Amino acid sequence: MQFEPLKNDRLLRAARGETVDRPPIWVMRQAGRYLPEYHDAKGDRDFFECCRSPEIASTLTLQPVERYAGLIDAAIIFSDILVIPQAMGMTVEMVDKKGPSFPEPLKSPNDGQYEKIMQKQVDVKAELDYVAKAITLTRTKLAGRVPLIGFCGAPWTLFCYMVEGGGTKLFVQSKTWIYKYPDATKALLQKIADICVDFLALQVAAGAQLVQVFDSWAGELSPAAFADFGLPYLRHISANLPQRLQELGLEPVPMTVFAKGAWFALDELCDSGYNVVGLDWLHDPAEAKQIARGRVTLQGNADPGVLYGDRAAITKTVETMVKGFWSDKKGWIANLGHGVTPFVDPDTLKFFFEEIHRLTQ
Amino acid sequence: MQFEPLKNDRLLRAARGETVDRPPIWVMRQAGRYLPEYHDAKGDRDFFECCRSPEIASTLTLQPVERYAGLIDAAIIFSDILVIPQAMGMTVEMVDKKGPSFPEPLKSPNDGQYEKIMQKQVDVKAELDYVAKAITLTRTKLAGRVPLIGFCGAPWTLFCYMVEGGGTKLFVQSKTWIYKYPDATKALLQKIADICVDFLALQVAAGAQLVQVFDSWAGELSPAAFADFGLPYLRHISANLPQRLQELGLEPVPMTVFAKGAWFALDELCDSGYNVVGLDWLHDPAEAKQIARGRVTLQGNADPGVLYGDRAAITKTVETMVKGFWSDKKGWIANLGHGVTPFVDPDTLKFFFEEIHRLTQ
Repeated sequence: MQFEPLKNDRLLRAARGETVDRPPIWVMRQAGRYLPEYHDAKGDRDFFECCRSPEIASTLTLQPVERYAGLIDAAIIFSDILVIPQAMGMTVEMVDKKGPSFPEPLKSPNDGQYEKIMQKQVDVKAELDYVAKAITLTRTKLAGRVPLIGFCGAPWTLFCYMVEGGGTKLFVQSKTWIYKYPDATKALLQKIADICVDFLALQVAAGAQLVQVFDSWAGELSPAAFADFGLPYLRHISANLPQRLQELGLEPVPMTVFAKGAWFALDELCDSGYNVVGLDWLHDPAEAKQIARGRVTLQGNADPGVLYGDRAAITKTVETMVKGFWSDKKGWIANLGHGVTPFVDPDTLKFFFEEIHRLTQ
Repeated sequence: MQFEPLKNDRLLRAARGETVDRPPIWVMRQAGRYLPEYHDAKGDRDFFECCRSPEIASTLTLQPVERYAGLIDAAIIFSDILVIPQAMGMTVEMVDKKGPSFPEPLKSPNDGQYEKIMQKQVDVKAELDYVAKAITLTRTKLAGRVPLIGFCGAPWTLFCYMVEGGGTKLFVQSKTWIYKYPDATKALLQKIADICVDFLALQVAAGAQLVQVFDSWAGELSPAAFADFGLPYLRHISANLPQRLQELGLEPVPMTVFAKGAWFALDELCDSGYNVVGLDWLHDPAEAKQIARGRVTLQGNADPGVLYGDRAAITKTVETMVKGFWSDKKGWIANLGHGVTPFVDPDTLKFFFEEIHRLTQ
């Protein structure tokens, strides 16, 4: 694949631990519903229909890059972590104002559906070709302005959705599986982890220049349970993706892990084979930097809720990040501690970006 | 108030840091909907109607004490943290399968409702007399079998409910308030904190022998925001309750703080004037014990989800707790890391209690 040369490699260099002139900036879910142009481009299309259309997905991906030109340093492909369960044969619908919903979640290892899912050989290249196409088209449209990030959901998080059937507060089914059916759970987690490796390799082959694994529900697991059901599968991905890329004749790309809520595992995550560790907003920046001891680049971590606040609150939050993460002028990718939430004013987000620029000059 | 002498003071002694023969045991939300006898006694009464009836509330409080006689060491009054917003003049309904709902949450400091709430002098004794009556009746019925715990919601958590109008995932309103209207937020938090002091004193006067403050949403705040909007109001309660009790001619009682999710503040919470610090299940027991350095008694912290598991999973979780918390045979109150969740089999919970007994013999 031939694309125009990258003009802004700040993100990739920072991810690899190299020196950069200022911290690269992007935010999770930067292409999304807080942008009026998102709604214009999406129209009344279904959410997953947008993911499946390379034209729409690339348009949405580029919107924040264009709106915040010169302020942000990366694009992240417009897609969803639940494309993997879909590729595995599960139906997932996006219900307005409710979120994702699986009409037929996995009930127990003894029902026929689990067996079916376990036995199905998933042809990742065929099932998720539309993501590859969206990435390639987006790279072409980006024309080297900023690098493009690919991503997938982590095995534990995807597993939760597959057994809960959607968002949940209590995680009744997920906890039942891990504490009652640990072996069947691990078998499924392993299967998902293998698909993650294939899927991320597919994204890199299509043009993704950095990949991030989102473990959004890591913070539901106790340290002992995370050691059993979370971390090994994150490690499986970081251990196998570089090798897979080599087999495909591709250069390695930096890898980021974001295990939201798994504060207790920060030290281990710094040794888990990823170049970048994403942090949620419960970490004090200076303390996290101390724990990381330069082993990885840290990414984060402003409370997305500060974007509902006034400018003084945003400035204070950025100051705390800059002071903590940028004390040695390296090893930080500026971001939020979670995705942009609905109802955020795009101009407030712009001010957040501008403050990072101003305070790291 | 005269009650029968306490036959089992294990909880109170452990809370005060004294030596006990084995760790006292109780679990949060032990009187609740997982018990079939709860539904029998509640009938089709509204949830808050049960809280307001001393007869029903005391019956529900005693159910786990009777079912698990000899296995648990405390009762906790059947009530709800939202009785304070009700006493402040807000309407709160309990909606089946949805949870609490405020038809008129506080929208902004500039709407009339905020002013009204701020100006209202709350007569805690009059408004929450039903809780006092329930406590006194329960103490009488307990006849000294185990001590009775009183409780209230923490200012930050009650504030979230009052501005969100119910449970939430995104905390849009709460974050808007703290980051946009910090002064109005603090004024309201202070008002709630003063009511908490009055309310806990009322409960002790009525017969509560230990009190717990539940800060269920502490983990939504960044360390900087918790320092501004969480901890000061928890400290206000622990600093003022003993004095208030003294003024009333009452003996001090042990105080417990449970700031769920605020892992980053554990060290500070150990110096915040409480005797006991409750922990959620994300803390590794041995590491938490190390951080606490004997300053407080720790309470917790099994993942409530393990009660959906098999016996091997429960045993493993109890072993981790016993090894970590009970290493020096003191300073631990065995509990879950959050309340009992729905659909738990009462016999599974019994096994959890039995395993704590067996492994601390």
